[in-house]
Amino acid sequence: MVHKFINQIEPGEAIDNIYIVRDPILRSTTRGDLYIAMFLSDRSGQLNGRMWQATETIYKALPKPGFVHIQGRSELYQNNMQIIINNVSVVDASNVCIDDFLARTDKDTKQMFEDVKKIVGQVKNPQLKALVEAFLADAELMENFCTAPGGMKLHHNYIGGLLEHTHNMLRVAVAILPLYPEVQTDLVLAGIFLHDIGKTEELSYDMAFSYTDSGQLIGHVVKSFLMINQKTETLRTKGTQIEQTVLDALGHIILSHHGQYDFGSPKLPATAEAFIVYYIDDLDSKINQVTAAIDSELSDSNWTTWKNALQTRLYRKRIE
Amino acid sequence: MVHKFINQIEPGEAIDNIYIVRDPILRSTTRGDLYIAMFLSDRSGQLNGRMWQATETIYKALPKPGFVHIQGRSELYQNNMQIIINNVSVVDASNVCIDDFLARTDKDTKQMFEDVKKIVGQVKNPQLKALVEAFLADAELMENFCTAPGGMKLHHNYIGGLLEHTHNMLRVAVAILPLYPEVQTDLVLAGIFLHDIGKTEELSYDMAFSYTDSGQLIGHVVKSFLMINQKTETLRTKGTQIEQTVLDALGHIILSHHGQYDFGSPKLPATAEAFIVYYIDDLDSKINQVTAAIDSELSDSNWTTWKNALQTRLYRKRIE
Amino acid sequence: MVHKFINQIEPGEAIDNIYIVRDPILRSTTRGDLYIAMFLSDRSGQLNGRMWQATETIYKALPKPGFVHIQGRSELYQNNMQIIINNVSVVDASNVCIDDFLARTDKDTKQMFEDVKKIVGQVKNPQLKALVEAFLADAELMENFCTAPGGMKLHHNYIGGLLEHTHNMLRVAVAILPLYPEVQTDLVLAGIFLHDIGKTEELSYDMAFSYTDSGQLIGHVVKSFLMINQKTETLRTKGTQIEQTVLDALGHIILSHHGQYDFGSPKLPATAEAFIVYYIDDLDSKINQVTAAIDSELSDSNWTTWKNALQTRLYRKRIE
Amino acid sequence: MVHKFINQIEPGEAIDNIYIVRDPILRSTTRGDLYIAMFLSDRSGQLNGRMWQATETIYKALPKPGFVHIQGRSELYQNNMQIIINNVSVVDASNVCIDDFLARTDKDTKQMFEDVKKIVGQVKNPQLKALVEAFLADAELMENFCTAPGGMKLHHNYIGGLLEHTHNMLRVAVAILPLYPEVQTDLVLAGIFLHDIGKTEELSYDMAFSYTDSGQLIGHVVKSFLMINQKTETLRTKGTQIEQTVLDALGHIILSHHGQYDFGSPKLPATAEAFIVYYIDDLDSKINQVTAAIDSELSDSNWTTWKNALQTRLYRKRIE
Amino acid sequence: MVHKFINQIEPGEAIDNIYIVRDPILRSTTRGDLYIAMFLSDRSGQLNGRMWQATETIYKALPKPGFVHIQGRSELYQNNMQIIINNVSVVDASNVCIDDFLARTDKDTKQMFEDVKKIVGQVKNPQLKALVEAFLADAELMENFCTAPGGMKLHHNYIGGLLEHTHNMLRVAVAILPLYPEVQTDLVLAGIFLHDIGKTEELSYDMAFSYTDSGQLIGHVVKSFLMINQKTETLRTKGTQIEQTVLDALGHIILSHHGQYDFGSPKLPATAEAFIVYYIDDLDSKINQVTAAIDSELSDSNWTTWKNALQTRLYRKRIE
Amino acid sequence: MVHKFINQIEPGEAIDNIYIVRDPILRSTTRGDLYIAMFLSDRSGQLNGRMWQATETIYKALPKPGFVHIQGRSELYQNNMQIIINNVSVVDASNVCIDDFLARTDKDTKQMFEDVKKIVGQVKNPQLKALVEAFLADAELMENFCTAPGGMKLHHNYIGGLLEHTHNMLRVAVAILPLYPEVQTDLVLAGIFLHDIGKTEELSYDMAFSYTDSGQLIGHVVKSFLMINQKTETLRTKGTQIEQTVLDALGHIILSHHGQYDFGSPKLPATAEAFIVYYIDDLDSKINQVTAAIDSELSDSNWTTWKNALQTRLYRKRIE
Repeated sequence: MVHKFINQIEPGEAIDNIYIVRDPILRSTTRGDLYIAMFLSDRSGQLNGRMWQATETIYKALPKPGFVHIQGRSELYQNNMQIIINNVSVVDASNVCIDDFLARTDKDTKQMFEDVKKIVGQVKNPQLKALVEAFLADAELMENFCTAPGGMKLHHNYIGGLLEHTHNMLRVAVAILPLYPEVQTDLVLAGIFLHDIGKTEELSYDMAFSYTDSGQLIGHVVKSFLMINQKTETLRTKGTQIEQTVLDALGHIILSHHGQYDFGSPKLPATAEAFIVYYIDDLDSKINQVTAAIDSELSDSNWTTWKNALQTRLYRKRIE
Repeated sequence: MVHKFINQIEPGEAIDNIYIVRDPILRSTTRGDLYIAMFLSDRSGQLNGRMWQATETIYKALPKPGFVHIQGRSELYQNNMQIIINNVSVVDASNVCIDDFLARTDKDTKQMFEDVKKIVGQVKNPQLKALVEAFLADAELMENFCTAPGGMKLHHNYIGGLLEHTHNMLRVAVAILPLYPEVQTDLVLAGIFLHDIGKTEELSYDMAFSYTDSGQLIGHVVKSFLMINQKTETLRTKGTQIEQTVLDALGHIILSHHGQYDFGSPKLPATAEAFIVYYIDDLDSKINQVTAAIDSELSDSNWTTWKNALQTRLYRKRIE
Repeated sequence: MVHKFINQIEPGEAIDNIYIVRDPILRSTTRGDLYIAMFLSDRSGQLNGRMWQATETIYKALPKPGFVHIQGRSELYQNNMQIIINNVSVVDASNVCIDDFLARTDKDTKQMFEDVKKIVGQVKNPQLKALVEAFLADAELMENFCTAPGGMKLHHNYIGGLLEHTHNMLRVAVAILPLYPEVQTDLVLAGIFLHDIGKTEELSYDMAFSYTDSGQLIGHVVKSFLMINQKTETLRTKGTQIEQTVLDALGHIILSHHGQYDFGSPKLPATAEAFIVYYIDDLDSKINQVTAAIDSELSDSNWTTWKNALQTRLYRKRIE
Repeated sequence: MVHKFINQIEPGEAIDNIYIVRDPILRSTTRGDLYIAMFLSDRSGQLNGRMWQATETIYKALPKPGFVHIQGRSELYQNNMQIIINNVSVVDASNVCIDDFLARTDKDTKQMFEDVKKIVGQVKNPQLKALVEAFLADAELMENFCTAPGGMKLHHNYIGGLLEHTHNMLRVAVAILPLYPEVQTDLVLAGIFLHDIGKTEELSYDMAFSYTDSGQLIGHVVKSFLMINQKTETLRTKGTQIEQTVLDALGHIILSHHGQYDFGSPKLPATAEAFIVYYIDDLDSKINQVTAAIDSELSDSNWTTWKNALQTRLYRKRIE
Repeated sequence: MVHKFINQIEPGEAIDNIYIVRDPILRSTTRGDLYIAMFLSDRSGQLNGRMWQATETIYKALPKPGFVHIQGRSELYQNNMQIIINNVSVVDASNVCIDDFLARTDKDTKQMFEDVKKIVGQVKNPQLKALVEAFLADAELMENFCTAPGGMKLHHNYIGGLLEHTHNMLRVAVAILPLYPEVQTDLVLAGIFLHDIGKTEELSYDMAFSYTDSGQLIGHVVKSFLMINQKTETLRTKGTQIEQTVLDALGHIILSHHGQYDFGSPKLPATAEAFIVYYIDDLDSKINQVTAAIDSELSDSNWTTWKNALQTRLYRKRIE
Repeated sequence: MVHKFINQIEPGEAIDNIYIVRDPILRSTTRGDLYIAMFLSDRSGQLNGRMWQATETIYKALPKPGFVHIQGRSELYQNNMQIIINNVSVVDASNVCIDDFLARTDKDTKQMFEDVKKIVGQVKNPQLKALVEAFLADAELMENFCTAPGGMKLHHNYIGGLLEHTHNMLRVAVAILPLYPEVQTDLVLAGIFLHDIGKTEELSYDMAFSYTDSGQLIGHVVKSFLMINQKTETLRTKGTQIEQTVLDALGHIILSHHGQYDFGSPKLPATAEAFIVYYIDDLDSKINQVTAAIDSELSDSNWTTWKNALQTRLYRKRIE
C-alpha cells in the first residue's frame, strides 16, 4: 500500500491508509449521537478526522497516540481538508514504514558514519583515542547516534540529523584546523564527535519527535557530559585510565558548547578548543536552519516569513 | 607562638611569626644589590614584605605560595605598613594553625552535622533514603562536606560554610514544608543535602580559598549532579537500584537550583520541589551576604559601600 | 436555582440560568433580520450566545457587562458549544450568588484572618504596633483585605487570595525568622501584612477580576506605600507619632518587595528585612502558581503546557 | 578673607583658609609620634592634609565632616599637592560662604522662579490650579525647590539645579505644546513643575551633595508622588477637593517619568502627557550632561573621556 | 463611481467596486468544481472573496497583488463578511484613486513642504547650506519625500507621513533650539531634514505599504547616510566641496538617530546635536503613535488594547 | 642605534634612544624650579620620564605626542622604573624604525596578499569580479589594506592585522564552502575581502593605534559599505554597471557581519552568505584573541587573568 501523504490529499478522495492518531475525543451531537473527533498526521502534516456513529468501544481501542489504519473519504469543511472515517483499526508499529511518518536525512547514513569513524580515527592522544573507541564499540548507542534527529524544530530535525550534523561539523573541523595550529586537534575532534551524544537520550523519535521526560529534566548538554564520565568509568573498570585533566578539558567543551548561558550552557568557553567547537556547531546549525527555511517555503516571495529564532525574515533571491 | 594578625601590627614592632608568602620577586636596587619584594598574608589581610641583601638562593627556596616563618620589623612606608625581613624560612603546613589563615564558621560543626543527619534521616522514599545514606557513609566526602567553604566571595566564604549553609537550608525547609503540603518533602530534603556537594571538588581551601582547575572548567552544579549519578552507580553495583524517574527528579533540582540561566543553571526549575530548593538557597545565601556585609564594615555610616552583586548600598541602621 | 456551570453544559440542554453578558453586538443577517451576538460567562468559562429575532430595545437594555437571566438551549456549532437564547432579562447583582462567578479560596477566610491578627499581634515595636493596629481597626479596609484576589492571573487569582497569600507569608516568616536572629522581626511581620494592601484598590472584583483605572495608573506597590503614609498621618492627627526612620524602613520594604526593577519595584532591597519579605513573597507566589498549574490541567501528560511566566513547561509526575 | 580654591594652590604657599575636613585619622609614626591624616576639600577639588605633632584632643575636636579653618603650608609630595597643617580650628557653618563649597547655577535663581510661576500660572483646570498654587504657597518648600541640586552626579549637579532643570523643561513644554494640540497642557505643566519635587527631600546639600537616608530608601520618584498626595489631603481639609481621576493622571506622570523600569519608574508611560514629560525630562538632562562634559574637560582632544552613562566618548569639535 | 469602503459594507449589498486582490488561490470543491479564494482590501480593511465556478484562465489573469474591479454581493459567513464574486477584471493603477487604498496625511502637504523649505533655508553654514539646497533641487526625490509614509506600522504610517514627521520635528527644533544655545543649529536642522530621507527608498507605497528588497537588506538609516554621501560627491563634481569634518558630523547624526543599538543605530549619539535629533525624532514618533492609538480604537473603554511596542495599554480618559 | 625596549630597561642604565613622548606637563618644584613630567613609550610599554631644570622653551618644543630622542639614566622610584632626562630633542618620523613602536604581524605580508588575490580571483560573477578587481587595482588603498591593524585591542591588533585576519577568513571560507553547496561562493569571498575594508579609514596607526575622528563618528561597518558604493559609482562612470540586487546582497553582508545589534550591526544577517561571513569573522577573531591571551601572559598559572570581553578566565594547560 503506497502511503498517501496528508499534504497531497485532494477533496473527495477515498482514503485507505495508515496515519498517526492523536488526542481523540468522544463527543455527542445535538441529536445525542456519539462521534469521535481526532487528529490524523504523517510527516507531511496533520488534519482533522471525524468518525460519526462511533461507539465507546471504538474510542477506547484507539491508541493515544499511535498508528491506525483509516478507511474513509476526504472532504473540504470550512476550507480545511478533513477525513470522514468509516473504519479505524489499530496497526502495530512493526508493520509501518516509519519513513512515512518521520522525516529522514537525504544523505547516506552508512557512508556518513564511515566518514565519522575515519575522521575520529585520527585522534592520537591515547586517552582520547580509548574513549572515542569505547563509544564506537557501543553498538546500540551508535545505532541511536545514526538514527536520532539533530533537534526538535530549528535544525537537522529529521531522522539521521544528529549524525549528519556531527559528520558535517567534523568535516568543517578537518578543513580548518590546519589554519589554527595552536588549537589541539584531538580535543576538537573528540569534542565534536560527542558534543550532542546525549540527544540520543534527550529526544524520542519512534513515531514523532518529542522530548523524553529525562531529556526535558536534564537536557542533552549535561547528559552528554554524564555519558562521557560513565564511559570513562567503564574503561577504568577494564583497566584503562583517563586522567582527570583530559576528562575535564573534554567535559568543558561539552558543557560550554552552546556558547552562552541563555542557551543552557552551564559554563562559557574558556579554551580555544571550546570556542572552535562552539563556533562550528553554531555555524553548521544556522546554515542548515537558514537554507532549510529558504527551501521549504512554497511562495514566490523574495522573503520568507518572519523567523523568530533569527529575529528577521530571510532573503531568498540568488544572484548566481 | 601566638599568631600576630596582620591587621593588628603597629609600626615599629618586632615580627616573629608565620605568614603566607605570595608572588615573591627578586630585584636589584639602583646600586646593584639584590632584594626580594613579596606579599605576606593571613586571614586578616595582606601587606608588603621587603628583604634587603637577599640572594638568589633565598629567593629560589621560597614557596610560591606557601607558609614561611618571618623574622623582622614593621614600619610605615608611604602610609602603608610593611615588614622589613631579616630572616625567612619555609614552614611545613602540618605545623601551621590553619585557623590563622582561613576564616572559619563560628557555629559548632559537629552539632550542625548531627542536625543534618537527623533531618535527612526523615527521608522516607526508600530509593532517596538509600542514596542519602550512601553519601553519609562516605566518610572522606563527609569530612570535606564539613570543611569546605560555601563560596569564594559572596556568602558563607569560610571553612565550614558549605555545612552551615546546607544545615540552615534544611532547617528552613523543615520549618516551611508543612505549609506547602503538595510539595514532596523527600525530594526537597535530599535535594538540599546534595545541591552543593560538588563544591567539595570545585573549591580548594588548604591555604586560601580558590577554584580547582576541574572546578573552574566544570562547575559545582554539574559536579554535584555527576556525584549523585556516580553514587547511584556504586549503589547499583551493590544491588540497590535507583529508578531513572527518581534520579531525574533529584538531578533536575540540582541542575536548576541557581534559578536562572545567567547564574549557570543549565535548566530552569520545572517542579515545585526545584522551585522551593532554589528559593531557600537564594534566601539563605542573600541573608548571609547582607548581614555579613552590614556587620563587617567598620565605619559609622548608616550605609555600607556599594555592593555590586546586589546593585545597591545596604542600610545599616536598626529600629529595634 | 442551582447554577449550571458553563464548562458542564452538554449539547441540547435547556438553559435557565444567570450568567455574565459581555460585549453584546447587534447585527443583521443577510435576510435583514436583527440578532444579538454576545459572550456568556461564569467562573468556569465562557461561550457564545446568539439571540435571533432580537430588537434594538432588547439590545439597549443589556448591561455591558453585567448579570442576565438567560433562557434558551445549548447546541454544538462548529464543535463549539453555544447557547441559542429565547429570553434575556437583567438581574440585580444583589440577587446573584457571586461565588458562581468568581473563584474563591478554599481556605477558611475567617480563620485565616484570625491567624493574621494573632501573628501581627506579636509586633512589639510600639510605633509599628500602633500602625498595624490602625490598619486592623479599619473595618472597611479589612473586609476588602479579606475579599480581594491576590492577583489577576498568575497566582492566588481568586476571592480571598490576598488574605490567603498574606496569611501564608506570615506563617512562613514566623517559621524561619528564628533561624535569622539578625533580621528585625517586627519590620518583617508589619512589612508582610501591608506589602500588598494596595491591591484592595488596584483590583476590581465585583463581577470578574480586572484592574481599576487608578490601579493601572499607579500600581499596588506605590498604593500600598501611600496607604501606609496616609494611615501614619491619621495616627499623627490623633496624637500618635511614627518616626520618619521607622516609616522609611517599612516603606522601603514595600517599595522593593518585587525585588527587581523589571517587575515594577522603584527601589531594590537594601536591608535584610526587605530581602526576606521579597523572597517569602516570591516563594509563596511561585509555589501557588506552580501547584495550581500542575493541578488544573486535565490531560494525562507528564508535562503541563508551556508557562510563559516561568519560561518552561512543568513536570507533573510525582515520585511519592 | 578671599577663599583660596584647592585647584589653584601652588606648591610652597602659606595657607590660611576654610575647608571641609573629611575622614580624619589619628596615627602614630614609626618614632611613636601622633599625627592626623585627613582630606580637605572645597567645590574645586580635594587634597590630603597632614598635621604632625597632633594630639588626641585635637583629633577629637575635628568635625567628621565639617568646616575648619586651616593654617599651614602647601607642598608637593610624590607629585601630589598636600597641606602641612600647623593650626586647625572648627568653624561654624553660618560663618562660611557656602558658594565656595557647593557649585551653583550661573543662572538668575530669582528670575527663573518668577518664570516658573508665570508658566504654571497658565494652568486652567481648577483642580490642578489649586494644587499648583498650594505648592507655590508653601514658602519653605519653594525655598528648597530653588536651592536643591538637580542630581548627584550626571546632570544639573549644583545648587539651583533643580530649579534650572524644571524651569528649562517648562520653557520647552511651552514651546512645543502648540505643535501637539491633543496633549493636555495643564497636566504637562503641572507634571513638569512637580516631577522632581521630591528631590528636595531625597538630596542633602548643606556642605556637599549626598543622599538623605530617607531619599536613598524611598527615592525622589515616589517622594514626589507622596508630596502631591499629601498636599491634596491638606487642600481637602481646607475644603478644596481634587478628584481621584485628576490626581491619578498627575500621579501617573510622576511615577512614569523615568520612562523605563530599569531607571526606577514603577510604571511605564501610558498617556501622551506622561510620554511628553518623560521626553522633555530626558532631553533636558542629557543635553545638560553632554554640554557640561564637553565644556568641563581641559584637554585639547577632540574627544572627551569615556562616559559610562552614555556608553560613548563625546566629540567636542564644532563646525560652526 | 464612489468607492465603497470595506469597513462600511453591510450584509446583502450589491458590490461594484475596485479593490486590491491578494493571494488568490484556485481550489476545487468536493464536487470537483473550481473556485477562487482571495483577499480583497482597501485602506479601511480586508475581507475574503469567493468566486464560484471559476476557471484557470480567470485565475491566471488575476494580479498577485493588484487592482481589480469586482462585481458581486456581500454576505455574512460565520459572522465574517465576505464577497461572492460574479465578475472580476483587472484595472490599471492609473485609473484608480489611490487615496481609497492608502491612508494619507490630513495635513496640507504643499504647505508643509513650503514650511520645511523655509526652516532649512535658515541654515547658514555654507557647506550644509549647499548640501540642503542640492537635496531641495532634486525634484524627483522631493516628490518622493512629500509622498512617502513615515513608517510601516507604528507611527506616521500614511502617505505624506515622512513629510509630516520631518516638518513637525523641524518646528520642534526651531521652538527649542533657542533654549540650548550651545547646540549647533545648522547641524540639527540639516540633520532633521535628512534623517529619514532613505525611507523614500526603503519603503514601497504604490498600492500598499511594504519594504523594498533593498530597503529590507540595507535599512533607511544607512540609506540616508549613503544618499548624503552621494549628493556630496555630486556637488564635488560640480565644484562644491563639503569638508570631511562637516560630512562626518552630519553623517553621525543620521547613523545614531535611533539612539540605541537595539533599534538599528550602528553608532550611539556622541554630540549634543545627535542627542537632540534623536530625542525630537523619538518624541514626535511616540506622540503620533500614542495619540493615533488612542483615537483609533472604537470601544468606550478607558484603556486601549495592549501596545506591544510600548509595553503597556494606553489610558484614554481626558481630564480637560 | 639598536632600540632599547622599555620593558627591558634595568635600573641604573644609561639611556640614549628614541621613544614616543605623550602628555608632557611643565611643573614647578616646592623650591620653585621648573621640571617636566611626561610619559615615554614604545611598543613594549610605557614609563615615566622626569626632566629636572627644564625651561618653558624645552617644554614648548615637545611634540604632544611625537618621537623624541632621549638621553638620561634609568632609576627605580617607588618600585617603578623611570627615566631621568638630561637631553631631549625632536625626531622626524621618517628617521624612526616604526617597528619599534607598533607591533607587526609575524606572517609574510607579501605572501598573504598574493594569497588573497588568488582566492578572490576565483570570483566568477562578472559584476562582483569587476568590483573586486577595482579594489585590487586601487594601489593606495591596497597598501593601507596590507598595513592596517585588525582592531584596537581585542584581536589582530598589530600592523598587518587586517590583512592577516582577512587572509585567514578567506582560507577558512575556501576550506568549508564545498561543504555548504547552497551558499553562494562569490558573495562570500567578495564579502570577506571587503567586510572590514573601512578599517583603513577608521583606524590611525602612524605612531600608535587609535581611532580617527571620522572612524569614531561613522565606524568601519558603515565606512566599508560606503566604500563599496563609491567604488561601484566609479565603475559606473567608466561604463561598468553593478546591478542594485548584487550591490544590496553584498552590502547586506557588510552591514550585518557583526551579527548582533549590540555589536553595531545595523542589520541582522538575513542570507546564508551573511551568516557564514559573520561566523567566520567571529571564529577567526575569537581564536586569535584567545590564543594571543594565552600566549602573552607571563605567569605560570594554569589560568589567564579575567577577560572581560569573554566573561571568563582562559585555561592555559594543554593535554597534547
